[in-house]
Amino acid sequence: MNFTVTILGSGAALPTQNRVPSSQYVNCNNRHFLIDCAEGTQLQLRKYKIHFQKISHIFISHLHGDHYFGLVGLLSSMNLLGRDKDITIYGPPELNTIIVQQLTLGGSRLSFEINFHALNFKDKVKILEDDVLEVYSFPLKHKIPTCGFLIKEKPKLLKINKEKIKDNKIKIEHFRNLQNGLDIELENGEICRYQDFTLPPLPEMSYAYCSDTKISNKIPDFIMEATVLYHEATFLIKEKDRAKATLHSTTEDAAKTALLAKVKKLYVGHISSRYTSDEKHQEEIQRIFENAEVAYDGLNIDLSKI
Amino acid sequence: MNFTVTILGSGAALPTQNRVPSSQYVNCNNRHFLIDCAEGTQLQLRKYKIHFQKISHIFISHLHGDHYFGLVGLLSSMNLLGRDKDITIYGPPELNTIIVQQLTLGGSRLSFEINFHALNFKDKVKILEDDVLEVYSFPLKHKIPTCGFLIKEKPKLLKINKEKIKDNKIKIEHFRNLQNGLDIELENGEICRYQDFTLPPLPEMSYAYCSDTKISNKIPDFIMEATVLYHEATFLIKEKDRAKATLHSTTEDAAKTALLAKVKKLYVGHISSRYTSDEKHQEEIQRIFENAEVAYDGLNIDLSKI
Repeated sequence: MNFTVTILGSGAALPTQNRVPSSQYVNCNNRHFLIDCAEGTQLQLRKYKIHFQKISHIFISHLHGDHYFGLVGLLSSMNLLGRDKDITIYGPPELNTIIVQQLTLGGSRLSFEINFHALNFKDKVKILEDDVLEVYSFPLKHKIPTCGFLIKEKPKLLKINKEKIKDNKIKIEHFRNLQNGLDIELENGEICRYQDFTLPPLPEMSYAYCSDTKISNKIPDFIMEATVLYHEATFLIKEKDRAKATLHSTTEDAAKTALLAKVKKLYVGHISSRYTSDEKHQEEIQRIFENAEVAYDGLNIDLSKI
Repeated sequence: MNFTVTILGSGAALPTQNRVPSSQYVNCNNRHFLIDCAEGTQLQLRKYKIHFQKISHIFISHLHGDHYFGLVGLLSSMNLLGRDKDITIYGPPELNTIIVQQLTLGGSRLSFEINFHALNFKDKVKILEDDVLEVYSFPLKHKIPTCGFLIKEKPKLLKINKEKIKDNKIKIEHFRNLQNGLDIELENGEICRYQDFTLPPLPEMSYAYCSDTKISNKIPDFIMEATVLYHEATFLIKEKDRAKATLHSTTEDAAKTALLAKVKKLYVGHISSRYTSDEKHQEEIQRIFENAEVAYDGLNIDLSKI
C-alpha cells in the first residue's frame, strides 16, 4: 500500500526559476489526485515523469490564479492526448463557469466528462470516499473562500502473522476473514480465533494540505494527528505584518498549527519569491516543531517512511 | 534603431520540455510588445531576462488556450511587482470578460489600468500608431476568430552624409530639417539643398506574425514584403490532412505564403509536439523558400541583420 505526495510547485504567487506556484500530485493506494493546479502544472507533471492521464480527481483550494491557472490548459492537453476517462473536479462554484467558458470560447469539446463538485466553505465535509480512503475539505482563513484538504486512509485489514500459519492448516481462502477480524472454522471443525493468526494492521496514514491561510485555531482540529501536514509559510516571522495583511502564515504560524494538530511531520511551502534561501524558514519552523522541513519543487514524500 | 523579436514559445498546443506554446516579445525602436501569452510566458520572460514591466502592449491572436492562458497570471505578477503604468491589450472581445472575471474572483484590484481593444476579424486594420511604427491586425483562417499582426516601422529620416558636412558650415541644428527632406538657408543667405547633404534613409523593417491559420490567398497581401514572417507550420507535408482538418498549416503552406508575400526571411513555429527533430521541417520549407528557418524557444531575431 503506497501513499506518496510529489510537490510540483512550492512557491507563492510569483513564479521563479526555483519555485513555481502551488500544485501537488498525490498517489494514495493507487488513487491519483492533483491538489491545486497553478500555471505550468502540466510541465511540472512531465518534468517529474507523472503520467497525467492517471489523475482521476483534482482539488482546487481557491480562486487565486497561483492555485488554478494551469487547470484548463491541463484539461485541454488531456483532451488532445485522447483521454476518454471522466475526471472529477472539486473547487469553488465559479470555477465550473470558468472551465466551461474557456473551453467554449476555444471551440473545444472535450472527449471526456467533467464531474464538477462545488466546495463548501463553512464546515469540514467528507467529499469523497471509496474502499480505501476518504477525502475531506475544510475551511481555511484567507482573503477569498478557501479550503484545505485531508486525505485519509480507511482502517486497514489485520496483517496475517506468517509465523503462525506455517503448518498450512490455514488455507489462503481463510485469510480475508481473519484479516477482517472474523474467527474461522476448519474442515475438521476446529475453530481458529483470528487473534491467534493475525497482527495489528498497519496504521492508517493521512495527508493534510493547508494553503493559503492565516493561522486559525480551528485548523488543528480539522487535521488532528495527520501523518504529514503541508502548510503554507509564505513569510518569515519578521514579515508577520505582511502575513497578517495578506491573510497568509509565517513559519511560526505553520509550526504552531503542526504542534497543536500533533502531526508527525510538517512540510512548509508556498514560500514567497522574496526569499532566495530556505535556511531561515528551516530554522524558524524547527524552533517550534522539530520534525519539519521546507518543501521544494520535485520533493517526493513517502508517508510510509515518516 | 533596433527591431528584435525573441521567440518565447515556438510550440503548438501541447507544451514539452523543448517547446512551450506561443508567445513572443518584440522590441521595435524601444516599444515593448508581447504577441500571444501562453501558459508559462512569465517564466519564459524571466528565463530570457526580459524585464516584463517594460511591456506596454499585448496582442492576443485568438482564444485557444495555447495563445493566452498565461495572460492573467502575467498581469497578476505585474501587479504584485508594483506596476503602475497602464497596459494596452488587443484581443477577441471575450478576452476582456475573462480578464475582469478572473481578477474579480481572485479578489484582485490591479494597481494599473488595462486599456482593452477588441480586434476586428474581418479586415486588415491599423490598430496602433505612434511616431515610429504602425501595428496592423488582419484576419487569419482558423477554427475560431483569429488575427495575425504586422508591426511596421514608419519611413525613416534621411541619413546625414558625414562626408559632405566636414567643412562645418552645416550646423547640428540644421540636421533635423535636412533629414526631413527640407532645404536650409545658412546665415550668409546660402541655400543648401537637402539632396546634397543626405543619403537615403535606412529601409523600414516590418515583422509579420501568422499563427494559427490554414493557407489563405489573402494573407500574402496583408503582409507584402515584410522583412520577417513568423508563420505557423504545425505539421509536415505528410500530415496535410490533419492540417486541413484542424485549420493549421504545413511547412509547404508556410513557405508558399512567404514566397507569395515576397518576405525577406521566414521563420516557422507552432511546431506540433509529435516532432522531436526540426530536420524535416527545415528541409521542407527550404525546398520552396530558401531563406527560411525553424524557430526555437529563446531564438532572438535581429531584423536589422536580415
